[in-house]
Amino acid sequence: MEATIITIGDEILIGQIVDTNSVSIARHLETAGIVVREKIAIGDNARQIVSTLERALHSSHVVILTGGLGPTKDDITKKTLAGFFGGGMRCDERVADHVRRMLESRGIPFNDLNRSQAEVPENCSVLFNTYGTAPGMWFERDGHIIVSLPGVPYEMEHLMQDEVMPRLKARFTLKQIIHRTMITSGLAESMLAETIAGWENALPSYLKLAYLPNPGAVRLRLSAYEVEGESVSQEIEQQFETLRTIIPHYVIGYETASVQELIHNTLLERNLSLATAESCTGGTIASRFTALPGASAYFRCGVVAYSNQAKAEVLGVDPAAIRRFGAVSEEVARQMAEGARRIAGSDYAIATTGIAGPTGGTDEKPVGTVWIAVATPEHTVAVVKQCGSDRGQVIDRASSMAISLLREELLKRE
Amino acid sequence: MEATIITIGDEILIGQIVDTNSVSIARHLETAGIVVREKIAIGDNARQIVSTLERALHSSHVVILTGGLGPTKDDITKKTLAGFFGGGMRCDERVADHVRRMLESRGIPFNDLNRSQAEVPENCSVLFNTYGTAPGMWFERDGHIIVSLPGVPYEMEHLMQDEVMPRLKARFTLKQIIHRTMITSGLAESMLAETIAGWENALPSYLKLAYLPNPGAVRLRLSAYEVEGESVSQEIEQQFETLRTIIPHYVIGYETASVQELIHNTLLERNLSLATAESCTGGTIASRFTALPGASAYFRCGVVAYSNQAKAEVLGVDPAAIRRFGAVSEEVARQMAEGARRIAGSDYAIATTGIAGPTGGTDEKPVGTVWIAVATPEHTVAVVKQCGSDRGQVIDRASSMAISLLREELLKRE
Repeated sequence: MEATIITIGDEILIGQIVDTNSVSIARHLETAGIVVREKIAIGDNARQIVSTLERALHSSHVVILTGGLGPTKDDITKKTLAGFFGGGMRCDERVADHVRRMLESRGIPFNDLNRSQAEVPENCSVLFNTYGTAPGMWFERDGHIIVSLPGVPYEMEHLMQDEVMPRLKARFTLKQIIHRTMITSGLAESMLAETIAGWENALPSYLKLAYLPNPGAVRLRLSAYEVEGESVSQEIEQQFETLRTIIPHYVIGYETASVQELIHNTLLERNLSLATAESCTGGTIASRFTALPGASAYFRCGVVAYSNQAKAEVLGVDPAAIRRFGAVSEEVARQMAEGARRIAGSDYAIATTGIAGPTGGTDEKPVGTVWIAVATPEHTVAVVKQCGSDRGQVIDRASSMAISLLREELLKRE
Repeated sequence: MEATIITIGDEILIGQIVDTNSVSIARHLETAGIVVREKIAIGDNARQIVSTLERALHSSHVVILTGGLGPTKDDITKKTLAGFFGGGMRCDERVADHVRRMLESRGIPFNDLNRSQAEVPENCSVLFNTYGTAPGMWFERDGHIIVSLPGVPYEMEHLMQDEVMPRLKARFTLKQIIHRTMITSGLAESMLAETIAGWENALPSYLKLAYLPNPGAVRLRLSAYEVEGESVSQEIEQQFETLRTIIPHYVIGYETASVQELIHNTLLERNLSLATAESCTGGTIASRFTALPGASAYFRCGVVAYSNQAKAEVLGVDPAAIRRFGAVSEEVARQMAEGARRIAGSDYAIATTGIAGPTGGTDEKPVGTVWIAVATPEHTVAVVKQCGSDRGQVIDRASSMAISLLREELLKRE
């Protein structure tokens, strides 16, 4: 069973927004055993919507569209679909009532534009959108399913989860897609590939191996598409077991868990707590942990100590150390980590101080230089890393490397 | 001049990563006057790469591919392109030297896999990748340009900027694409559309209006595609001037600037400083400001006070207030903002405290309830907002709403 995802909106094509909807839709489909064949983004253009939909129906049983369902003139998906399926429009009273109530609760008058949101093509089933004003729509043609969802991410997400997936599962007998990912750290991609070449060449043909290099880690993903029963899962487990014996020191985890998710689980299991003291990463490390449900059980406090004054007054860094070594130095990173651990009363603390750029670099400490420290109950470790030249890249890499350093310290105590 | 962007990689299709490369490529092309017609994501599958490329060449003069250029077996883009253009492979000595030196500097031995990265199709021009080991490739066929770039974001970015765009500009006479965005706040999308309907209906046909609703703001984008000269820019300016007279109280800014970028500029211009005290938003507000180059001039300190102890000890919130009103309360939000302002010695401070979920909600304070406070040199304001039901959504919306509240306070002092 194959699917195509079509994202509609000029804002995607001109690079004004990042498309996260298709990521979420793909995950839902894959988890249920539907292979995503292609993802396509097109503009708010009726002819292009029709031709793309026609082509998608040639290669896929299921087509999910998202976007272009707003009440304003620039959104044309609904009318275009009504034309495509050759019917008129009808007013859905349940949707009309819902939109009216929703707007009234926010003190917004119900006008003609809102009323038009309750108009749907005659030949669709309405997917009721509890969280928003634009309903989802479900069409069938020659055994193919076409679904149109609003572009607002959480409205789309709830409709996929509560309406679309249950209907697809009821409608089709789906096989399984299995992805399992091993996370390695410490071997460059080419070295890793050379080291495991014998194992890779002996893999059965229905298992597909992918290398996913990231700062500080290379992930190995084994995938099997449209298989049945438990035997393939077991085969993947056994293959990873064999691989672990080949590179025992480089395997740091499994699944699609990020390093922060692995740490999150470890801290919860061991009942340990965490604090952060960030300069150049500016809150990114704290936000990565606090994005995970349950983080409040271990995340005590984070300090974004951007100014030297904040480093000294909030974290207790010695101003003389800042003067002598500079804010971007091993000594300051260590004192920041220790200060965060002390004021939060936590077991562990991570600190970063570096030059994110684009300005502020020197010959000795160019843009991208970041000192990272981790304070533990036993000691404090610090390393310096070169994290690139672009501000976003430096923040992202320094955050990942700091989180990896914490992971190494947690592993030492296993 | 039209372009298609093709992203290659199973990890995109299965939803394992978010595609930001095509966003960045689209921006480069649009800025230079090349209209992005379609963005397509496909898997590491030779037949699909070829058929997608053939189709893209029918509708576009320029096709940019990204991804699938790694040294490992799963990456097949380079060989597939060599086959597509009907030539063999050659070793590029300059690339080979660069890869060898790059790996040596990181202590990684140069092996056969790395050597294969210097192999390129005979009929391409190499786009030298200073920042990575996989070279970019430039092909021409029947006046069409096909460019293949690595998937690592900052390598792709530098190649687009330093190699691809200068060549495209030299090769073609490009027209202009003009997008200008007005940011409004305070009118729901349907109300706004109703209010400005007369203006919208009178727009000249070559100007395209789009509504982009976001939490706390609706953006209006006017676009003109492939136009020449300055007159269209002036027309857009005049249209926005007229619009401003229709909704004078709801226009909060222009261009693609986010609300934090507007504040960033205001704080820099007025030489004011900022601090943050975040509970449920977990560092997201701090990271949005510190992502902007130059934020160190005004961003003093952020505290992610997740535990009650951190709220009391680091920010000086009265523990009795936490016991009496709860951590998610107006009183605690106010004290957090005032505490952050005090310890950072800043002019302004933002605070958030709420229930991000999925657990922790009660009948009285359901998941999504967030108290937001802003402390200014004159006073402290606080509001309570319902920010949704999904953890990521609550964090995102609460951050946006808190930043908008700061913006309102800054406007009062204009």
